[in-house]
This record gives sequence, C-alpha cells and structure tokens, in this order.
Amino acid sequence: MRAEILSIGTEILLGHIVDTNAAYLAQQLAPLGLDLYFVSQVGDNSERVTATLRHAWERADVIITTGGLGPTEDDVTREAIADLLAEAPVVDIELEQELRAKFAAFGARTMPERNLKQAWLIPSATALANPVGTAPGWFVERNGHIIISMPGVPHEMKRMWTEQALPRLLQSSDSTLFTRILRIAGIGESSVEEQLGDLIHLTNPTVATYAKADAVDVRISAKAATVTTAEMLVNDIDARVRAIFGRAIFGTDTQTLASVVGDLLNTHAWQLGTMESCTGGLLASIITDEAGASNHMRGGIVSYATDLKEAMGVPQAIIDDAGVISNEVALAMAHASCQRLGSHVGLGITGVAGPDSQDGKPVGEVHIGIVSPLGEAAFAMQFRGDRAQIKLRAAMRALDLLRLHLMEH
Amino acid sequence: MRAEILSIGTEILLGHIVDTNAAYLAQQLAPLGLDLYFVSQVGDNSERVTATLRHAWERADVIITTGGLGPTEDDVTREAIADLLAEAPVVDIELEQELRAKFAAFGARTMPERNLKQAWLIPSATALANPVGTAPGWFVERNGHIIISMPGVPHEMKRMWTEQALPRLLQSSDSTLFTRILRIAGIGESSVEEQLGDLIHLTNPTVATYAKADAVDVRISAKAATVTTAEMLVNDIDARVRAIFGRAIFGTDTQTLASVVGDLLNTHAWQLGTMESCTGGLLASIITDEAGASNHMRGGIVSYATDLKEAMGVPQAIIDDAGVISNEVALAMAHASCQRLGSHVGLGITGVAGPDSQDGKPVGEVHIGIVSPLGEAAFAMQFRGDRAQIKLRAAMRALDLLRLHLMEH
Repeated sequence: MRAEILSIGTEILLGHIVDTNAAYLAQQLAPLGLDLYFVSQVGDNSERVTATLRHAWERADVIITTGGLGPTEDDVTREAIADLLAEAPVVDIELEQELRAKFAAFGARTMPERNLKQAWLIPSATALANPVGTAPGWFVERNGHIIISMPGVPHEMKRMWTEQALPRLLQSSDSTLFTRILRIAGIGESSVEEQLGDLIHLTNPTVATYAKADAVDVRISAKAATVTTAEMLVNDIDARVRAIFGRAIFGTDTQTLASVVGDLLNTHAWQLGTMESCTGGLLASIITDEAGASNHMRGGIVSYATDLKEAMGVPQAIIDDAGVISNEVALAMAHASCQRLGSHVGLGITGVAGPDSQDGKPVGEVHIGIVSPLGEAAFAMQFRGDRAQIKLRAAMRALDLLRLHLMEH
Repeated sequence: MRAEILSIGTEILLGHIVDTNAAYLAQQLAPLGLDLYFVSQVGDNSERVTATLRHAWERADVIITTGGLGPTEDDVTREAIADLLAEAPVVDIELEQELRAKFAAFGARTMPERNLKQAWLIPSATALANPVGTAPGWFVERNGHIIISMPGVPHEMKRMWTEQALPRLLQSSDSTLFTRILRIAGIGESSVEEQLGDLIHLTNPTVATYAKADAVDVRISAKAATVTTAEMLVNDIDARVRAIFGRAIFGTDTQTLASVVGDLLNTHAWQLGTMESCTGGLLASIITDEAGASNHMRGGIVSYATDLKEAMGVPQAIIDDAGVISNEVALAMAHASCQRLGSHVGLGITGVAGPDSQDGKPVGEVHIGIVSPLGEAAFAMQFRGDRAQIKLRAAMRALDLLRLHLMEH
C-alpha cells in the first residue's frame, strides 16, 4: 500500500515555518506497512491544492493532508477534497452543535458564520474530533482510497492522529499497533544501527533509529490483530535489543536522561549539586527542565572564571598541580559542590568548549567528576563539534555517567 | 517567475530527518521575486525523481534540488537531470582533478571509482564548487529554465547557495541582492508584523518577519543592478523600521541578545554574575554560548532550593517578608551574586516555571532583579507557556532588561 503526504499552507512555502508534520507522519507510516513515496508542500491556493490532491489520488492508496482546515477563504482543503470526489459539502448538525458549544466555552458571544464550514462533511467523510482546537478533521473512504485530513497546528495534528486517525486506519485493515521506544545513551546513531544488524530490516515488528538530543531512540513497532499479540512481538525484539545494548539503554518511551537520573536520586533520597565550567549552566538547566526537579536538585555553581573555582572551594594547589582542565579539578569541583551547596551528590565539569584551546588543552577535552555516598570517580573525554555541540554532549555525558554511577553501586 | 523546490532523499521520507533545507531556500526566494508554489520530497528512486523533476520543469522557471549528489547508486539526481534533458553526462577533467585532490588531502590512498560520477557534467551544466564536501553542485541553464542542484547536507547546501548559486542566479537577471536583518526583543511576532503595517507588502525591498528563540527578525532584502543601489534601498526601509521599534531593535544580522549584552559589558569592562532559581542555569548557559564569554562572565549560582538562597547571601528576612517569588528577592539575589561571585553586575531571577504553582504564585510569574554600578531595578512579569517555554522566555527577557539597563544609564 502506498501513502502520500500533503502539507498545505502558504506559510510553509514562505519559509516562515518548517514542516515538521511531514517528518512526524513519515515516522508513523513505516510500521503500518505503508510505503511513503512522495511528500508535497503546497500553498493555500484552491487550484494548486486540488491539482496536487488529484496527482496523489492517482498514485497513492492513503493520502494524509495537514493544514487548510481553518475558517477563512484561504483554507481550501475541504473544498479541494469535495472537488476531487465531486461530492457536495453540507453542514453536519452534530458538528455544528459541537462547534457552537466550543465558541460558547471560549466565551465568544457568537460564532462567526464563516466558521460554519468547519462543520462541513461530504458523504464519503466522517469527522475526526479535535479536542484541542476548533477544526475537526476528515476521514474519507472511497473506491479503496483513504484521505485523512488534519489541522496544521502540530499539537492538534499529533493528538488527532494518535487518538482518531491511526485507530481508524488500523481498523480499516483489522489490525492494531504496539510501539515501544528504547532510549540509548553514550553510543552514536550509526553505531547503534550497525549493532542492530539485521533487526533493522524486519518488516513486522519494524525497528528504526532516531537521533535525539539526549539519546538514540530505537523504536520497535508491531502490527497484529490484537494488541496483546502486537505487544508480544515487540517484547521479543525488545529482549534482543536489550541483549545487544545492556545498560546503555537508560529508559523507554517518554523517559529522559534527566528524569531517569532524577528517579535514581529520589530512590536514594539524595540531592544533587553541580559545579560547571565549560558547560556554563547547561547541565543544571537540563536537570531542572524536568517537573519535580526540586525533589532532587539543590542547585549549582557556574564557576566560569578560574579564580572563582578557588573561591567556591576548589583547592588552589590542585589547580596548580593538575591544571584547571583535569580529572583532579573535576573531582575537586564535585566535592566543592557538595560542600558549598549542601548536597549528597556532587558533579563537576571542566573542559574546553572552544573555539580556542585553553590552558594547552584542545577544544573538546572535557573532564567530569562525580562524588556520592557510594564513592567517587572522574572521567576524561574528547568531544567533537562546535561550541554548542560540545556543551550539549558534555552535559549529556555527565548525566549518563551519573546514572551509571548511581546504578552500579 | 516561478520556482519549485525538490528535496531528494529516502531518509526524509522515513522521517529520519526533517527537511529544513526547503524552509531555508523558501526564505531565500521571495526577495528574488521568485514565487514558490510547490515543494516536493521524494526518495532516492531514479524513476520517481525523474517524474517529479519533469513535473517541476513543466510548471516552474527555476528548479532547486537538494540531495542525491553522493557517490552511491542510490544517489540519482545527476542521472535524473541528464535523463530529463536527454543529455549524456561526461567526466569533467577539471572536476576529476579537484575530486582526486580532495581525497588525497583527506589522506585516502585512492578515490573509490564510484566517486567519479561526482565529477560528471552535462553540456547545459556548469559546476558549483563545494569547499566543505566532495559533491559539487550543478547550475543548469536550458530553454529559459534553470536547475540548481545542491547537496542535502545543510551546511554544504547553505554555503553553496550563498557563495555559488545565488550570485549566478542574480547574474542571470543582471541584478544583485542586499539583505539586512534587524533583530527585535520583547515584542511578539504578530505584534511586530502588525506594527510594520504596509511595509510587509512591499515587493522591493521585501520585508519579512521570522520568530527566533532570542528575537523576532525583520529581514529587509532589496534587489538592484548594483549592490550600492540595493543597500540604499535597504537603508531607506531600515530607517523606517527603526523609527517604529526604536530600542527594541537590539542588533543586526548575526548579533544575538547574548553577544550584544556581552559587548555592552565589555565596553564598561564589567563582569556579570547571575543567581537563578526558576530558569535553573539556562540564563548562564545562554550567556556562555557565545565565544569570548569569559571576558564578561564571572559565573553563576543556581539556587534551586529555597534555603540555598539564604546560604548564598539572600537575607532570610527579605524572603520571609516579601515571599521567595518577589521583586525584593530577585533584587537581593542580584546583590548576592555580586558579593558571592565578585562581579560588577548582578542579575537575579526567581519565579514559577510550573507545572505547579508555588508559594501561592501562579505558573509563569517571574521576577528579575538587576544591580550594577549604574543603579538597580526589579521587574515583575507573567509569562505563558509550558515549563521549557517559561524558562526560555524568562532568561531572554532577563538578558533584554540587562541590555536596556546598561544602555539607559
């Protein structure tokens, strides 16, 4: 079965927004056994949207559109589909009531009449509910073709896809889908893919990798008649992936490196303090991105100026002996952060973010020190990339080393 | 004149990468007077790439492709263009020499023979040099149509576009382009657009807005026979935009809010210290994203736990009297950061990043305190958004308030 995606909206063609919807949907299609051959982006122009739709109808079984479902004259997706199928749109009484109720709930005295087209349906279409916006989507079935039309606002689209469109699409093939994401830290995407070997070529379950800021995600998706069977298929591959990567897998699905470290600290009822030099506060910021961070994060020090390290408790003798970019200083920073911040666990980072080398050390050299009631350790690393990449990689590696430290003991 | 963009690569259709190239190029086309009606994404499949190219050739004057210029069999862009134009590709001696020289420079003993197709040209094509990769691009002119083919790697594509493709495209219409970006802080994109009024509808220069993390960018681009004339056209609009937004314009082109604040601190030869609560280190991280930050950044304290504020020098009486989420505490944090970090300028942030309210204060309430040899000030704000958005907006607003403080006195 072939699929095609149409992203509709002049703002995409002006470069005002990047079309992330197409990439999201593309990721969703492979596990369904749908081959995506074309994605098109087209402006809010009736003629061009209809022409593109017609072209897609000729070469695809499933067409997914995003955008163009607003209330204005520029929003032409419904009109174009009606045109293509030569079906007349009529106001659906139930949708109209829901729409008027939404406007009343927003506190609007009356609904602008132009919004009424958001209650349209054609005979081949059923509505896809939009709990977080005004525009319902359409699920169109005709002559063995399916058209799914959803809003362009990413969070509205994703919710409609997950809760409404995907289940109906699966229903139309009497199947269900189960997905699990295994999140891997400390290994690059190409190496993950290489170690996965033939698993990457499976068709059911499918196995795919995605590089994220804090992890490489391995997504395992299985299609089956029941969710239990699909989950069993996923569990089988899950076990094989875990056998390959072991503890490099830090979590699943929505867990983040910071949330997993937070959970480990909470288990021990320990609080963390950080002292950062080259990462400049990024590590503390990532830790505090998680809701509930105040349970395990006491605080941090950004000791950017070298003499500030001493003022904050790093012995001058260690700096003089080992140099400021060293395991010894990273460890002393970890100790100092425990003392100054009153935390159980301390983490120190010192290194060279670039663009210039420092203290005779090359750009990308980073040292990480960890102190906890379980013991202490220091690590030397060499990262590649520009200043922002080195900061991010160093902060993520520090989090991952802390995770392994808290697990290993 | 009509333009069309083709993004070529199976990794786009698998959702492994988001096609940011198309959005970048889309932004580049409007100032050239080129109307972009369609963007297509297609996989590494010879037949489908050729069909999409043929379709684009029928409806556009200028076609821009990215991707598919690698050395493998999957890279079919050159073949597809040769097919479309019924021209035979031949190895260009000069390109071959350059290619072999690149491999020699990389330390490769010999160049794989399959790479030789990266030295191909067809009669209608000239080469676009790629100083940062192996694949040269093509600039094809035939029957009044232009095809520009560039690599898919974004930094290779952008450099080739700016240095090679754009100048030739302008040359073909005997014109030149001058662009200036005015960067605005503290005003939302829709408000900027509204205040720009009719300027947004000009055709030469063009005026367009883009929302970025630290600013709303107003990009003014003029096309003219000479760069001097183009720059004069831009200067005229520049003055009108400055008259509207005044000091909300913090810089131009590649300047960032952090770099402008850094420059102001450097002018005074002052160093900055920060004490952050709700932003959790993000402000310090943004400041230290700039190369050369060590000239003006002493360091920071992330006083996440409330009792840590007192330990770091915020008087307990102020916290008790005013509450921890208050102008008074923000100002005391600014003072404390000067004292503890030994800086000339201090900045304190306290607030509620959410998702839960804190201390009886709603999510998004943020207080910012600034202390410098010029004086002191505190500001109360209310931000909308999720935790990550509130952190980012608070940090950016703090930077902007510091900028205005350093300018005003």
